[in-house]
Amino acid sequence: MKKLSSLYQSGDWKGEKHVPVIHAPETAKKGELIEVNVNIGEEIPHPNTLEHHIVWIKVYFQPEGGKFPVEIGNCDFVSHGEYDVFTEPYVTLKFKAEKSGTIYAASYCNIHGLWENSKEIKIED
Amino acid sequence: MKKLSSLYQSGDWKGEKHVPVIHAPETAKKGELIEVNVNIGEEIPHPNTLEHHIVWIKVYFQPEGGKFPVEIGNCDFVSHGEYDVFTEPYVTLKFKAEKSGTIYAASYCNIHGLWENSKEIKIED
Amino acid sequence: MKKLSSLYQSGDWKGEKHVPVIHAPETAKKGELIEVNVNIGEEIPHPNTLEHHIVWIKVYFQPEGGKFPVEIGNCDFVSHGEYDVFTEPYVTLKFKAEKSGTIYAASYCNIHGLWENSKEIKIED
Amino acid sequence: MKKLSSLYQSGDWKGEKHVPVIHAPETAKKGELIEVNVNIGEEIPHPNTLEHHIVWIKVYFQPEGGKFPVEIGNCDFVSHGEYDVFTEPYVTLKFKAEKSGTIYAASYCNIHGLWENSKEIKIED
Ligand SMILES: [Fe+3]
Ligand SMILES: [Fe+3]
Ligand SMILES: [Fe+3]
Ligand SMILES: [Fe+3]
Repeated sequence: MKKLSSLYQSGDWKGEKHVPVIHAPETAKKGELIEVNVNIGEEIPHPNTLEHHIVWIKVYFQPEGGKFPVEIGNCDFVSHGEYDVFTEPYVTLKFKAEKSGTIYAASYCNIHGLWENSKEIKIED
Repeated sequence: MKKLSSLYQSGDWKGEKHVPVIHAPETAKKGELIEVNVNIGEEIPHPNTLEHHIVWIKVYFQPEGGKFPVEIGNCDFVSHGEYDVFTEPYVTLKFKAEKSGTIYAASYCNIHGLWENSKEIKIED
Repeated sequence: MKKLSSLYQSGDWKGEKHVPVIHAPETAKKGELIEVNVNIGEEIPHPNTLEHHIVWIKVYFQPEGGKFPVEIGNCDFVSHGEYDVFTEPYVTLKFKAEKSGTIYAASYCNIHGLWENSKEIKIED
Repeated sequence: MKKLSSLYQSGDWKGEKHVPVIHAPETAKKGELIEVNVNIGEEIPHPNTLEHHIVWIKVYFQPEGGKFPVEIGNCDFVSHGEYDVFTEPYVTLKFKAEKSGTIYAASYCNIHGLWENSKEIKIED
């Protein structure tokens, strides 16, 4: 069986413009709101045209010791020049967690497919 | 014909917890990135449980003189307690525009349906 | 306050290509799976190009006597010519209900904004 | 770096209830509309409760010889008991393609994470 998951791409976001950049604190307190920003192109801008743009970003959190990722949120970037309006591939969300774990970001470019990145976060009492 | 649009609700967000709160600058420059934050419950928190939560927020922009709203973005808030993870009904996006106009926010509560709000923004040369 | 809901458009789908066409049975049994198809352009095709296309369709159900619409599902039509792939603005979903009520469809054209339609369904014991 | 893509799960849908079932023709003609149905639980039903349900299904197509998957559509299943309304994890879409290739389906269970499947389709002149 061919696997979609084998088509996810990654790399260093300072050198590859598609890799989602994840900004989140290194540590947070249990149950405290955690702000996470994910964007594409912070270092090397990605095109944002009708022909070539970032369609969505998804953010997941996997508590350590858990087997499954929990989807935090999904953000669709919808305008790409209609009436001169352009949405940036940039989203800030907030979530709460009770355990340390991994924040994952996934994104989709309409021309270059699926990309991913991750970042650890420590949750303290 | 019964109309979904007639079921949208609104009000003063300082008194009604479902009304989307829109934070955006009063003015911006043509083509400059405009940051817009929309959240539910800034003054009076809305429940965030499996049984009762905000499912999504959409943001639109209508340039003045235009007939149609342009969708900026859509954000789905996906976790509501799974493995103790909770997503806040809060999203920050960025967009560019060439004309003054109206920012609209729409949102959906799984128990209390559709809500809306709007805010004007002046775009200067 | 300017209202997004006032920008929803409708009409007769046999004459206006943007109006969502709703196919669902006139009657169904309590708790039975109800198939609902919503499409745009069944009678008069809508363009499906990068520059002009249908972005999404949402389907809601409001049980009679209830004040709020319940979202059944949301469908995003994502490809518009990338590598010669085109998604049609067409979706079939299934849901169950316990009471008669109204099925609503909403849709968004990237150039012509928001559209709506509705259809009654009778649920029998 | 921890990888979200490494958390995708698969298997035989006749034995594992989470695996998306893909129904599509073996062959289609160039530019002809191709109907694809994806559902979860056709053989072994998956729970559909507030506590445990399928949140979304995504469908992609990768033309042979191409490096990237093209997203056909995304479908969110939104109601899970609100006012006795339940959405089934079932969606039918239509798309056109010019080359043979692979249809991929991805899905997300709020408790058991990400799942995938794929199916080949031959496009003839
Ligand atoms: Fe790209
Ligand atoms: Fe509510
Ligand atoms: Fe149109
Ligand atoms: Fe499950």
